[in-house]
Amino acid sequence: MTEESKFIEQDLQSIILQALSKVQHPEVKEQNIVGLGMVPDVRVEDQLVTITLAFPFQEVPATAELPQKVIRVAKEVCSDEQVRVDIRKMTPEERADFATRAQGREPESSSSRSVRQVIAVMSGKGGVGKSSVATLMACALRRRGYKVGILDADITGPSIPRLLGTHGSLVGGAAGIQPAETKTGIKLISINLLLPDENQPVVWRGPLIGRAIQQFWNDIAWGDLDFLIVDLPPGTSDAALTVMQSLPVHGVLLVTSPQDLAGMVVRKAAKMVQQLGVRLLGLIENMSFVLCPDCGNRIEIFGPSRAQETSLQSNVPMLGNLPLDPELAVMCDQGRAEDYLNENFDQIADKVLELVRSSMERMKP
Amino acid sequence: MTEESKFIEQDLQSIILQALSKVQHPEVKEQNIVGLGMVPDVRVEDQLVTITLAFPFQEVPATAELPQKVIRVAKEVCSDEQVRVDIRKMTPEERADFATRAQGREPESSSSRSVRQVIAVMSGKGGVGKSSVATLMACALRRRGYKVGILDADITGPSIPRLLGTHGSLVGGAAGIQPAETKTGIKLISINLLLPDENQPVVWRGPLIGRAIQQFWNDIAWGDLDFLIVDLPPGTSDAALTVMQSLPVHGVLLVTSPQDLAGMVVRKAAKMVQQLGVRLLGLIENMSFVLCPDCGNRIEIFGPSRAQETSLQSNVPMLGNLPLDPELAVMCDQGRAEDYLNENFDQIADKVLELVRSSMERMKP
Repeated sequence: MTEESKFIEQDLQSIILQALSKVQHPEVKEQNIVGLGMVPDVRVEDQLVTITLAFPFQEVPATAELPQKVIRVAKEVCSDEQVRVDIRKMTPEERADFATRAQGREPESSSSRSVRQVIAVMSGKGGVGKSSVATLMACALRRRGYKVGILDADITGPSIPRLLGTHGSLVGGAAGIQPAETKTGIKLISINLLLPDENQPVVWRGPLIGRAIQQFWNDIAWGDLDFLIVDLPPGTSDAALTVMQSLPVHGVLLVTSPQDLAGMVVRKAAKMVQQLGVRLLGLIENMSFVLCPDCGNRIEIFGPSRAQETSLQSNVPMLGNLPLDPELAVMCDQGRAEDYLNENFDQIADKVLELVRSSMERMKP
Repeated sequence: MTEESKFIEQDLQSIILQALSKVQHPEVKEQNIVGLGMVPDVRVEDQLVTITLAFPFQEVPATAELPQKVIRVAKEVCSDEQVRVDIRKMTPEERADFATRAQGREPESSSSRSVRQVIAVMSGKGGVGKSSVATLMACALRRRGYKVGILDADITGPSIPRLLGTHGSLVGGAAGIQPAETKTGIKLISINLLLPDENQPVVWRGPLIGRAIQQFWNDIAWGDLDFLIVDLPPGTSDAALTVMQSLPVHGVLLVTSPQDLAGMVVRKAAKMVQQLGVRLLGLIENMSFVLCPDCGNRIEIFGPSRAQETSLQSNVPMLGNLPLDPELAVMCDQGRAEDYLNENFDQIADKVLELVRSSMERMKP
């Protein structure tokens, strides 16, 4: 084995999971063992693949053949590696998930509330204005009369409460924690609303990040919403994975900047979304230019636009370009994003509404 | 238990680990069980704390009392929770780590090479120009005659190879994988140099991100370097934690933008660095203004600077301000960052050299 193949080990893990997702559960109709949460861990170390199989109940005869089957399927996609299966009982939490999944429902989540459209705002790249776009989108939809919430999934760099001037602590109720509410009635949850001091860092590894996001979805009393906008952090790691795997995301808005460098990272994000089978609604180019307040000159601060290229390469429709507006930066720092009006953005919001209209027929704005 | 205390569970994990780090190993002098890698997992679920204890060898009499001691110490910091200890044997990999740690050495890493100063470039916030600053810093040091490497720790949004125009695959050797080399001789590793297509996403959860970064440090034949610049992704999660816990980081350069919103996230990053006991070298404000190419007007695109405030609040010296230069954006997209010269930046580089000079006496530029 060469040094480089260490990196390949990590791909092997995905390949094995994919292969195992074709193994049907012998008793649960049309459900595979990965989807049912029965394969909590696949570990590749040197030449040894260790697959953890978790069973909801011990010793059910129908599943007695599963470990052998798993080894057989995994061996088909491995070349030299030895394959081992470790068996354990599910935790009570895993068993509850298994039960709801086995009934063809999503675990817990979608009950006791009505959130019609979940739209994630993503980029892959940092600092291209995801949070501004997410906030302006929420404001534009709210101005059109919809019930709107924002879930700030950026746990280590949360900015939405700042943009909307929302502070204060949250209150628990019978239905769960009540989200904060902005002056125009946008509901909001963010880790910064739970910290005693907004400058306090949240130094958590990925699993905690994922769990916090799941709690934001499951434990917050969102009530009745037409739209929940999810603001994702940069990257294609835990936060993005958790949101797309655990929340019923209807579509993703991609945000990019003119730099081809940003485009490259955004194309990675687009591929991730497509691989996970989530719908890409469209691409928004932010920070396209600055208008000189003195001479009116249009300055392409990040060079000429490459968004069209990204749109074509990633097969995602272009929804529009936004300038970098110093006024917006100042209003965001003042927590007054709701007061900001921009014609370009309103057109983008209308396009997004158009795109999701089909599944929105029953919404009354 | 209230709803909000679910979030507290995640803190409990850290508190328990901290308490356990005071439990000495009965046979290994001046070493605690956490530092020796014997506590690979602490899980808090509902009212149950499960601590995994890993032993290098089964049934060593001296350590027979450890599980009870661990339960006792953990119970002291828990209030209502039950505490359980799961015991397992270490994997061969963990055992090797344990052995080197027990001898008071860092596992593998720092041997067989000479990297004098590791400087991490961090922000917490995305898109403020961490990668540009990391690259320009490497170039400035290289121009001054130092031997320089860049470790691109942004696994899901790697941009350094683009900025430096570096492509091609890596070659393995006896000492490990050879890093790529730029035209001026800067050594470079990035996940994008290992992907068949730079647009391919790396959809990994935190543990894999951490492992990849450790491999970049351990398995790359860095050879003899005066400086290794580490480019961190946004956030205070896995990548930043792994770099600061597993690499001998001598200092951190913080990058911010004028927005107070960015400042807030950067202050979080500063606190994380201070909590981990790593030295903060200084703060660089990027994107401070744009000069209109037509009328020469200085436009504060992100509003008036707040960096001084952040510098004071976080007690980290201000190293300088950089304009947002459209020329740099274009040159970066063309992979020609090494050809970019900027007087402001050179002054910053000199200040950084000044700051690290004391520990650099033996370096020959």
